[in-house]
Amino acid sequence: MTESLRINAKRYQGDFDKLATIGATGDGGVHRPALGENHLLARSWFQSLIISDGFDFHRDGAGNTSARLLSKHPNAATLLLGSHLDSVPYGGRFDGALGLMAAFEVLRTIREAELDLPYHLEAIDFTDEEGTFVGLLGSRALSGILEQNDLISPRGGRGAFVEALERAGLKEAGIFSAARQREALAGFLEVHIEQGPRLIDAEAEIGIVEAIVGIGSFQMNFKGRADHAGTTPMGARKDAGLGAAALMMEARKMVMDDFPECVINFGKISFDPGVYNVVPESAEIAVEYRAPSEQQMIALENRILSLAEESAFRFHLELDIQKQGCVMAQDCSPKIQEAFAGACEILGLRSVSLTSGAGHDTMSLAQVCPAGMIFIPSTGGSHNPREFARWDDCINGANVLLQAVLRLCEKV
Amino acid sequence: MTESLRINAKRYQGDFDKLATIGATGDGGVHRPALGENHLLARSWFQSLIISDGFDFHRDGAGNTSARLLSKHPNAATLLLGSHLDSVPYGGRFDGALGLMAAFEVLRTIREAELDLPYHLEAIDFTDEEGTFVGLLGSRALSGILEQNDLISPRGGRGAFVEALERAGLKEAGIFSAARQREALAGFLEVHIEQGPRLIDAEAEIGIVEAIVGIGSFQMNFKGRADHAGTTPMGARKDAGLGAAALMMEARKMVMDDFPECVINFGKISFDPGVYNVVPESAEIAVEYRAPSEQQMIALENRILSLAEESAFRFHLELDIQKQGCVMAQDCSPKIQEAFAGACEILGLRSVSLTSGAGHDTMSLAQVCPAGMIFIPSTGGSHNPREFARWDDCINGANVLLQAVLRLCEKV
Repeated sequence: MTESLRINAKRYQGDFDKLATIGATGDGGVHRPALGENHLLARSWFQSLIISDGFDFHRDGAGNTSARLLSKHPNAATLLLGSHLDSVPYGGRFDGALGLMAAFEVLRTIREAELDLPYHLEAIDFTDEEGTFVGLLGSRALSGILEQNDLISPRGGRGAFVEALERAGLKEAGIFSAARQREALAGFLEVHIEQGPRLIDAEAEIGIVEAIVGIGSFQMNFKGRADHAGTTPMGARKDAGLGAAALMMEARKMVMDDFPECVINFGKISFDPGVYNVVPESAEIAVEYRAPSEQQMIALENRILSLAEESAFRFHLELDIQKQGCVMAQDCSPKIQEAFAGACEILGLRSVSLTSGAGHDTMSLAQVCPAGMIFIPSTGGSHNPREFARWDDCINGANVLLQAVLRLCEKV
Repeated sequence: MTESLRINAKRYQGDFDKLATIGATGDGGVHRPALGENHLLARSWFQSLIISDGFDFHRDGAGNTSARLLSKHPNAATLLLGSHLDSVPYGGRFDGALGLMAAFEVLRTIREAELDLPYHLEAIDFTDEEGTFVGLLGSRALSGILEQNDLISPRGGRGAFVEALERAGLKEAGIFSAARQREALAGFLEVHIEQGPRLIDAEAEIGIVEAIVGIGSFQMNFKGRADHAGTTPMGARKDAGLGAAALMMEARKMVMDDFPECVINFGKISFDPGVYNVVPESAEIAVEYRAPSEQQMIALENRILSLAEESAFRFHLELDIQKQGCVMAQDCSPKIQEAFAGACEILGLRSVSLTSGAGHDTMSLAQVCPAGMIFIPSTGGSHNPREFARWDDCINGANVLLQAVLRLCEKV
């Protein structure tokens, strides 16, 4: 009977489109870095929607914001559905937002059908998935796997982080209070755009994620000497910029040659003093790398550190490295993968299994409860305003989520 | 008789030390970027000194600030002596400041000796020698070789430049009013620290500059595509950062292999959007290069442009290049070189001839009147707080300037 249940596509799209206007950049994208003004506006909007729709509203100490549909069963565990409202700076409107709107639409559809489910359902918006400060902050806090150490050197700097928490009405110590009892978590399901070409290449409508890559990052600071750029012979310089440039070139080659399943990115750089006519005294560079298994992660990390040391040695530089955090690769729950596959079958959708090259809140939850996610096809890359998913695919994603939830509830 | 005249070393050092406290960074250096608050404070201090010492005070439309000692001769031309009070960000206390204090001390010494000279003498502080906005702005304006085009893309950006002019009480249109009649300029003499190791290596006390290198600069913007740093395969990226890194590595090698008399520097860089988990969409990099002759300058510039295009092509990037200005190498006046050599002989100082790897205000004046400069030995590199000259060498520099001025006046 519930196999014929479908989400309300028009209502879902209406809310998705409204959300996309918050922090809109005018080119189809949104600018909603975590805990910034636009992000907090999006949260307020979601809060209003939850309350006006008559759902139970919940916000925890990490700022995670939820709509709850409570089960009538005593001692029911919670099945979490969701994603995140924050974006990278000048990012796209689908990443995170689509998953949360799909989750919320599933709650509305199930409430309208007046189904008696064995789980509480919760559509949750996790704080700082993108790592403006601390990647997966909200989902790690809720999973109870966030550590005090993780807050010591937030990407945007301590000062900005403290200021952002204050702006959001949060307290640093309160973040840890978001941790849930593992027994209370029945599972976590997430819908997301693929952010890559594999579904389209495979002509598939749904991607069922088997595992999510591990992600690590370093802040590296090459230190040389500030010299006059005219009077100091080339060979006598200690040019910190060259250490960073050499590392970028060598590390790219190393990853492509020896780690075909891994990636590396140098997304941010600055030279100090940063003027035309002074040889850079220091070069600070952000390094991020991803690997699909713990073994590859460790091997890759060691190679990056070796190359950084070689680059520093080659140009007579000192090197200061700060590890910014590391999340190991996570397998998705077989039970949830099966529920997604069953849902695709019911809906007549072609699905493929794949690994996720992007980190997602699912990574956090997978460490403490059954967790899984699906991708829908997308184009235009990702983390930029051109990321795009066809609306039919967005609808498919929400319906697969709905049917997977119903399958999981049947099996309790 | 005038051969025995010497500057007042104690007074000269007293003023130099006072000046070094303005914008002092606590590590021996000063932070006085042109038209910034510290620089304007230094100028106010110099103005007070000029007025309290009873010299004629002059400030032109480019902000150049002078003490004048007027000749009694009708229609006397002006012999300019001087340098600059601005510094690179977090630079040293000798660069520029020493030359101006030496020039001012020479004026005081000559006035005290009550000499009747055939030239007006002027100790002048030129605006923005270091190129916070437009390199050699003041000396080019005074020489009448500054063009409207030179003000279009100042290094610090148009907005900051307009703001800085306002802060200094200057008007953009008024800058050109600083131009002097060539016939009114008898010459320009400058004292400066060497900012390199050659005088110390040669065990010389004075370096007489034969020629000054030409300096050119580009702002290059590599443009790629902002992609998700996890989901986009390495080979499918358009990573703008790699274009910049490849250019840095290749250009350094090219200069060292093929242009041993030239130098290149990449002093400033930024990636956009500039976050860990997004492939850089654009990489903006500052390129500065120097050559001792016009021929080498042109050849070097062409090679840099070719390498930049190759780097862009290699990583599938677009490339936008803005030329930020170019000053060709300049020969110093033989007559002034002779006057410096004669002064060294009188003072019993060992001198060597050399070319200057750094640009100086002398470059501007050399295009319109006899101009020349001397170096004194210095250590600790330059454009940094560790640049250092022994005080005996500073005194020698001022005395050589004094005696060279007297020699030139004798020959009128």
